[in-house]
Amino acid sequence: MFDNVPQTLEMLRSKGKQLVFVTNNSTKSRADYKKKFDKLGIPAKVDEVFGSSYSAAVYIARILRLPAPKNKVFVLGESGIEQELASEGISYLGGTDPSLRRDIDPATDFESIANGSLLDPDVGIVLSGLDFHMNYLKTAIAFQYIQRGAIHLATNIDSTLPMAHSFFPGAGASSAALVKAVGKGEPTSFGKPSQAMMDAIEGKFQFDRSRTCMVGDRLNTDIQFGIDGKLGGTLAVLTGVSKKEEFLAEGAKTVPTAYVDKLGDLLG
Amino acid sequence: MFDNVPQTLEMLRSKGKQLVFVTNNSTKSRADYKKKFDKLGIPAKVDEVFGSSYSAAVYIARILRLPAPKNKVFVLGESGIEQELASEGISYLGGTDPSLRRDIDPATDFESIANGSLLDPDVGIVLSGLDFHMNYLKTAIAFQYIQRGAIHLATNIDSTLPMAHSFFPGAGASSAALVKAVGKGEPTSFGKPSQAMMDAIEGKFQFDRSRTCMVGDRLNTDIQFGIDGKLGGTLAVLTGVSKKEEFLAEGAKTVPTAYVDKLGDLLG
Repeated sequence: MFDNVPQTLEMLRSKGKQLVFVTNNSTKSRADYKKKFDKLGIPAKVDEVFGSSYSAAVYIARILRLPAPKNKVFVLGESGIEQELASEGISYLGGTDPSLRRDIDPATDFESIANGSLLDPDVGIVLSGLDFHMNYLKTAIAFQYIQRGAIHLATNIDSTLPMAHSFFPGAGASSAALVKAVGKGEPTSFGKPSQAMMDAIEGKFQFDRSRTCMVGDRLNTDIQFGIDGKLGGTLAVLTGVSKKEEFLAEGAKTVPTAYVDKLGDLLG
Repeated sequence: MFDNVPQTLEMLRSKGKQLVFVTNNSTKSRADYKKKFDKLGIPAKVDEVFGSSYSAAVYIARILRLPAPKNKVFVLGESGIEQELASEGISYLGGTDPSLRRDIDPATDFESIANGSLLDPDVGIVLSGLDFHMNYLKTAIAFQYIQRGAIHLATNIDSTLPMAHSFFPGAGASSAALVKAVGKGEPTSFGKPSQAMMDAIEGKFQFDRSRTCMVGDRLNTDIQFGIDGKLGGTLAVLTGVSKKEEFLAEGAKTVPTAYVDKLGDLLG
């Protein structure tokens, strides 16, 4: 699967190409990804990684810019989100806080969430991402923040997560309880194919879209992201989620410009 | 709020009216409700209570009737569901099982869910209801059952739950992670306003719909239930969720036949 990937990336770099690694996985920070790349023997720099958590943090810190003090973020998700919020100097709570990784206590929590005594009055944003520790307590708290005026943002809303050669609930699933309770449809999100992600990448790298190719294994996120962003081209690699039958089928919704069985095939 | 309610129910009974108490709350069984009524001093019999868990159990046992052995139910919810499944002789797992009230273990669980070793091959149905102990592990297991062909049913899909003079995530929220991951929209559900519930009640009580009045405090569940069921009338009581401004507004979607400030007002 990763045959010749380091050599392929080296070849692209030697031709002067700027590489950006774009991921929807919010559980890892850019630094976490750098470590993962190191382990896989794939040369990459932290600044070349663009994750949905980082994208959301950049949006909150540089574009949304809620006035203090009501600009804290309540996190539904893992440490990747926390790390990226911290990297942009944003105050947050929730997230991996062990005091919220517990059952709701009917004797006290309903009342103290409803009357606000369990809440921080400075929360202005709820940011949700993939949360392997999702529970009723955190969802109820997040819901109460939103009822009190907080904005709901999501790192990404992928319904599923490919793992162990199967599928598991994704970020869109782990925050779906909140979305359903609020009843206003999906929140603004920053993962592929959201163009909020493309805009954030462009803000950082100032690339020429017509000379850019999006490479990815998932049609409804990666390839759609490149198409919606009007990039010069999209390249599907068949080592992941989508199969070529899906885009070769008549009337296929999302069709890449080209495809390869694996990335290393670009070496020719 | 409950002023004169016992007397009002007594008056109705003395006029020969059949009373049925219909609730969407899946966390309690009919027997649990009987106890709650006793505590409130409201005379009621277990057989007069019709809950969404009971309604789902009746549907599974008497209508769906999946052939053995693949007819076990994996429960996402509380003991009310388990009690009602047991009362209809249905085998179940999940639910309040303490071994599933834990975090997912990335080192082992993804693999053993994906390869099926953590699954019971006889599960043919996933039944979801309000689950104060919702977590990623149970959702991932339920999702895997559905990917392997299990039917998803829901006791009810209420987005919110009125508690402590506020709102909290409801049954539809606690099972929304599963629904989002599956991506096929809401499952068949048995709570008001679903007419599956009305049909189940009719199957038990054989009442004349034209001479039946639905009484309730929530327009989009209780009153809609009566309207969709073509009952003779619907009566909104203003001691709960909905306010009269909602149905008196021009163009209101769900309008009861009549309303009272509180049920006791029927005594006149």
